[in-house]
Amino acid sequence: MKITSPTLLLNETICKANIQMMVDKATANKLILRPHFKTHQSKEVGEWFREVGVDKICVSSIKMAQYFADNNWTDITIAFPVNILEIEKINDLAASIKLNLLSSSPETITYLENNLSDAVDLFIDIDTGYHRTGISYTDTNRIDELLTQIENCSKITFAGFLAHAGHSYKSRSKEEILKVHEQTLEALNGLKKKYISAFPNLIVSNGDTPTCSVANDFGDIDEIRAGNYVFYDYTQYKIGSCEIDQIAVAMACPVVEKKLANKQLIIHGGGVHFSKDSIEEDRLIHFGRIVANKGNTWGKLIDAVFLSSISQEHGTIQCTPTFFEQTNIGDVIYILPIHSCLTADSMKSHTTLGGAVLEHLEGA
Amino acid sequence: MKITSPTLLLNETICKANIQMMVDKATANKLILRPHFKTHQSKEVGEWFREVGVDKICVSSIKMAQYFADNNWTDITIAFPVNILEIEKINDLAASIKLNLLSSSPETITYLENNLSDAVDLFIDIDTGYHRTGISYTDTNRIDELLTQIENCSKITFAGFLAHAGHSYKSRSKEEILKVHEQTLEALNGLKKKYISAFPNLIVSNGDTPTCSVANDFGDIDEIRAGNYVFYDYTQYKIGSCEIDQIAVAMACPVVEKKLANKQLIIHGGGVHFSKDSIEEDRLIHFGRIVANKGNTWGKLIDAVFLSSISQEHGTIQCTPTFFEQTNIGDVIYILPIHSCLTADSMKSHTTLGGAVLEHLEGA
Repeated sequence: MKITSPTLLLNETICKANIQMMVDKATANKLILRPHFKTHQSKEVGEWFREVGVDKICVSSIKMAQYFADNNWTDITIAFPVNILEIEKINDLAASIKLNLLSSSPETITYLENNLSDAVDLFIDIDTGYHRTGISYTDTNRIDELLTQIENCSKITFAGFLAHAGHSYKSRSKEEILKVHEQTLEALNGLKKKYISAFPNLIVSNGDTPTCSVANDFGDIDEIRAGNYVFYDYTQYKIGSCEIDQIAVAMACPVVEKKLANKQLIIHGGGVHFSKDSIEEDRLIHFGRIVANKGNTWGKLIDAVFLSSISQEHGTIQCTPTFFEQTNIGDVIYILPIHSCLTADSMKSHTTLGGAVLEHLEGA
Repeated sequence: MKITSPTLLLNETICKANIQMMVDKATANKLILRPHFKTHQSKEVGEWFREVGVDKICVSSIKMAQYFADNNWTDITIAFPVNILEIEKINDLAASIKLNLLSSSPETITYLENNLSDAVDLFIDIDTGYHRTGISYTDTNRIDELLTQIENCSKITFAGFLAHAGHSYKSRSKEEILKVHEQTLEALNGLKKKYISAFPNLIVSNGDTPTCSVANDFGDIDEIRAGNYVFYDYTQYKIGSCEIDQIAVAMACPVVEKKLANKQLIIHGGGVHFSKDSIEEDRLIHFGRIVANKGNTWGKLIDAVFLSSISQEHGTIQCTPTFFEQTNIGDVIYILPIHSCLTADSMKSHTTLGGAVLEHLEGA
């Protein structure tokens, strides 16, 4: 394979090991595994999950649900608050697959009941501390009101409680991740205890890559929905979710200029390729870490070499003198992305080390 | 037109007025106008330029050059350091259009001379203070060396000096922009004076939306290459490049949740739609400013309502109590993007107020 322009490389062996690792963890803990497919958004990568027995998935938009339904996934949770404006697409999907929706809003539930053509399962969105969406796990009055409302619906069945402990992303060690996990378990175990007798089939679903990667005890949780672990990325490594050699993707970018004055390299690789997500490390905000070029794959982290700034198409590499001297115009350098979900979404394709180009859902 | 999912709206009237404004400015100043097409990357928007006499364009990748060459643009400058790994594509393009390349690297020029099939014009990349790429305008020794090298090439003709005063983006008023502009003019005028007798056809090309929007004196500059002005955006407004009603694009995003606890709204609209570019304003970092919903278009800025955080698909709107009360789940809210180039690149299409969907080059 000859790389000539910015390319998102995918190490299939590492990726499949990540997929298998979470299958094994779910099996060991008797959990339903419903991986989030927003990271890869790829029918081919989806098949690697199917090959190891996964048959339930999670997505974050109706468009993604349609794409995977078109690729024979028949049990899909859209883990994003229902957008009632897309009722026609929801009805199309609900007619053909088992569709599980998410909301914490009585207005949305009323609208769905009045406008759905087919039955759907609905999760109540629970906030266990991330504070992005959902009802606080402590606000059982509002939960009770919603449950009463859902019980009076003919087209909506209460599926359970769904949480996303996104504040786990603020961790910087396995211990910090486990602290978030314990708090999440306490919140969700409490809800399960309170409601299981009235709703014996309720599913408690939780999902974020840091806690699902690190924890080995999932309390009364029934289902996990992690997604990013399929690729991992440099942020997950810094959080403590993974080892550096579990990162399955790297950007390959051509060097187009050597700046003699300040020993920087310019690459073709900018915000439209990496996304603008950054991380702060040793007081430096950067957009990716450079790893060794090992011919058709990448190797270890190179000390003190960073993607230090990006504009639309340009990337600037802050170098050590050695790296600067060893690297020439026309070389390809490999960079671990900060946030693989957004990099994959920007790149719109994944190229395996063997040169196969795997698709990514197009558009926004 | 019924908007049901995140949509990049384009006000064709404003956009065409922006296009005309720069044509008029170029005409008045006897400048070659070579607009940068990286902002819209759209064959249809390109035609709006052609309709008012533009026949030379600028792009920032070979892929973009190919796209516009396929759409009958025959004089294209790739204002990005030549990526020698794409020599085959360069040769394909050079065989069919007038292709102008950019570099400041002797290695690249040697490679081109040895591997080009057809003749190209080459601009020397000049750093006038932005420090991203190029040779410093003060380093006339290196400029002289490059010129000697180019003079000995059979396939490369020296086209002139090309600069991008990207540090104009740090301005926060017209006065600050004009200060950058004056420094740039001084640098480029000096180069022109020094080299014009030896190279009577040399073109001095400069381009960035802030200075091209605000300045009325372009000194000895021959060509301007601004691009963002086709749409402008909230950053350009804060820089001082444009008035708020010159912004030609807004994101339209459905409201999916009202968070009662903290009076925030959740929209479908996140990093994959807006990009992650942000701006700091009144000590708040935000990702977009909310404007009034006027039915099929947008109106004035709404005070103190911001897109305050985004994740992959979610956006959080920090509200005033009034805006929170007036806005309901299922409403569509309009948001001026921080950086229209990256938002358009994320969205991959532009929808006119009349509902026509204009294409954007696909992929990364």
